[in-house]
Amino acid sequence: MTDLLDSLFAGRAGGFRPSPVRDFWEVSMEPGIISLAGGNPDLSVLPLDALGEVAARVIRERGLEVLQYGGGTGAPGAREAAARTMAAEGLDVDPDLVQVTAGSQLGLDLVVKLLCDPGDVVLAEGPSYVGAIGLFVGMQVDVAHVPIDGDGLLPEALAETIARVRAAGRRVKALYTIPNFHNPSGVTLAAERRPEVARICRDAGIAIIEDNPYGLLSFDGGTLPSLRSLDPDNVIYLGSFSKVVAPGLRVGWVVAPESLRRPLQLASEATVICASVLSQAVVEEYVLRHDWLDVLAGARGRYQARATAVLDALATGAGPDVTWSVPRGGFFTWVTLPAGTDVHAVLDAAIERRVVFVPGSAFYADGGGAEQLRLAFSLEREEVLAEGVRRLLDAVTEVTT
Amino acid sequence: MTDLLDSLFAGRAGGFRPSPVRDFWEVSMEPGIISLAGGNPDLSVLPLDALGEVAARVIRERGLEVLQYGGGTGAPGAREAAARTMAAEGLDVDPDLVQVTAGSQLGLDLVVKLLCDPGDVVLAEGPSYVGAIGLFVGMQVDVAHVPIDGDGLLPEALAETIARVRAAGRRVKALYTIPNFHNPSGVTLAAERRPEVARICRDAGIAIIEDNPYGLLSFDGGTLPSLRSLDPDNVIYLGSFSKVVAPGLRVGWVVAPESLRRPLQLASEATVICASVLSQAVVEEYVLRHDWLDVLAGARGRYQARATAVLDALATGAGPDVTWSVPRGGFFTWVTLPAGTDVHAVLDAAIERRVVFVPGSAFYADGGGAEQLRLAFSLEREEVLAEGVRRLLDAVTEVTT
Repeated sequence: MTDLLDSLFAGRAGGFRPSPVRDFWEVSMEPGIISLAGGNPDLSVLPLDALGEVAARVIRERGLEVLQYGGGTGAPGAREAAARTMAAEGLDVDPDLVQVTAGSQLGLDLVVKLLCDPGDVVLAEGPSYVGAIGLFVGMQVDVAHVPIDGDGLLPEALAETIARVRAAGRRVKALYTIPNFHNPSGVTLAAERRPEVARICRDAGIAIIEDNPYGLLSFDGGTLPSLRSLDPDNVIYLGSFSKVVAPGLRVGWVVAPESLRRPLQLASEATVICASVLSQAVVEEYVLRHDWLDVLAGARGRYQARATAVLDALATGAGPDVTWSVPRGGFFTWVTLPAGTDVHAVLDAAIERRVVFVPGSAFYADGGGAEQLRLAFSLEREEVLAEGVRRLLDAVTEVTT
Repeated sequence: MTDLLDSLFAGRAGGFRPSPVRDFWEVSMEPGIISLAGGNPDLSVLPLDALGEVAARVIRERGLEVLQYGGGTGAPGAREAAARTMAAEGLDVDPDLVQVTAGSQLGLDLVVKLLCDPGDVVLAEGPSYVGAIGLFVGMQVDVAHVPIDGDGLLPEALAETIARVRAAGRRVKALYTIPNFHNPSGVTLAAERRPEVARICRDAGIAIIEDNPYGLLSFDGGTLPSLRSLDPDNVIYLGSFSKVVAPGLRVGWVVAPESLRRPLQLASEATVICASVLSQAVVEEYVLRHDWLDVLAGARGRYQARATAVLDALATGAGPDVTWSVPRGGFFTWVTLPAGTDVHAVLDAAIERRVVFVPGSAFYADGGGAEQLRLAFSLEREEVLAEGVRRLLDAVTEVTT
């Protein structure tokens, strides 16, 4: 068989790389394995009977609408649900400004299409979300990482990175950031740093892409001012129902400055026409007419208990050279192993002990993260998580001694 | 308010243009208007109660699966449903070769990402599907149209176009074609031309993107050999549930030659992670466990009666200088007005008469189609369609006399 296509691939074809997180999916599904790898939300809190009835009703009563092609900016109800979700976090946005997307990942794809030429540079926390890095690299956009500490992005490092990339003759288009309960590091950008980050980007003439899937998942129910609220004309806000309703519906949204809104709609239509209209209707009914915030509060309590289980197990079992972040929400903590530790050797030893995590290098475009790893606590019960951490620390001990 | 983003747009940002088809949506929805514009399927044939119960059951019984993130190549059941749909058209494909996409439009986006650098050329029928043209242009890919007649693509014109584009120093990557019940022309690529089209592309070293959303919508139930079956190593097949199940679910698929399959999965994950898992489950249950082909046969009968109503009304009322294609399936006929007619003046006169259609220029990347228009007969009843054609012909008469 001769496959003729090899010679026809575009320059960007080689850039789409396997996501290490997705690659761990299969081993995560093996019986008896404890997965600290995937950042899937815990859906067992959802009222499945009620959601099933919602889906049946929208098809029965609005089938000719929810099974037909939908509008390019999204269904009015889904746009309202997005605005309502932002309002629950203290963000006041007119639903007319919401561009519904077929998941937040598509929102980022559209923004990259509209802002980034091949060879452009986007800044991102080091480490950063593996799916964003994969998209940037696939679209021939280079990622320059900005160091973080326990309070998120370091403003002075942000300014230095912009200057350094520009001194190398490169064009910087945007800062991609997850300010709340960051994936993978678990840290939150401190309130006092937010105006500074917004100002540095505005002064430098680069956009901010604010990715906020976890903002409603603080353990104490508190929220911080969004970057969008600090500079709405320079911040592209990515929202998602994946962590607060359900990821399988694949509904997210973008709230962008005015000049980007019509191009976003057109790029979305050209890419997917619209998000699943059925999914949009389910989101609408659930967010506008059910006690979804009560359900979410229950989920938040679970995530907090699980985070505590992981942090306690680390505190109890880790040697003095192992450190970790202390998340105040979200799904993750970020562990730094003793200097010189080969995290891939730790992974091999961990899988032998039937526990899996994602090595830190997955979250860097530049080979960083070699001694670090991400632990997700969103999906397993506390005692399982604690046992997983014990096995992981055994693996670390084996590799480092 | 200062919107800083203007200076940051990428080269491709200006290329995403409004779809004229989508722009007519709003006027189509006005009360009293007869729409011959949008190619929406008639969903009133669908068993909405049964589909609602399907959705409720998959959420109730498989909610932790269908509301969670899904696999990168698609759910096994949705891949099986895609293979089953191809089998109904006489195409034998292993479900393992199916890449599920969030609608067929996304399949085309992924193929463009993987095959087309900016400045590459894709060939397409003249006229061609407006959504494909919009995506190509948005992604900085130039479209060279290949003339057609009542039997579809002219093979000699295809070879000449490839030679001409290459003589201009341009790189041709693919032929994008809709061989069955073509949108917008309504014509079908004749069986005897298919091997020749496949051979010309193979000999020229360019891929074929075979877009087949309408293949199961022949009025007589017949099918023709797919281009994929004639050269599976050089044809990328795009399938869609939009016209045979429901477009609002946004589930389509790609069957690609081997070298493209893994890149397609990775590009799909980077772009949308996966299609709506709920939508995929509804497709699976409906296609694998309901009498969907009987429902489809009913829809086909309706479409045939509607096509007949439009063609009869044209034959009865059109002047000698108006010609049109005679579709044997699908949703469209393509009307050519007397030489020199300004189709946009006809459109204005038609809207005054409360009827709307899409002017031919929408279906060309190069300004062609100035004296032509597309009539869609998929959504209105026969007597309404006939009245719409009468009003349209009145508008033609007004403009041309």
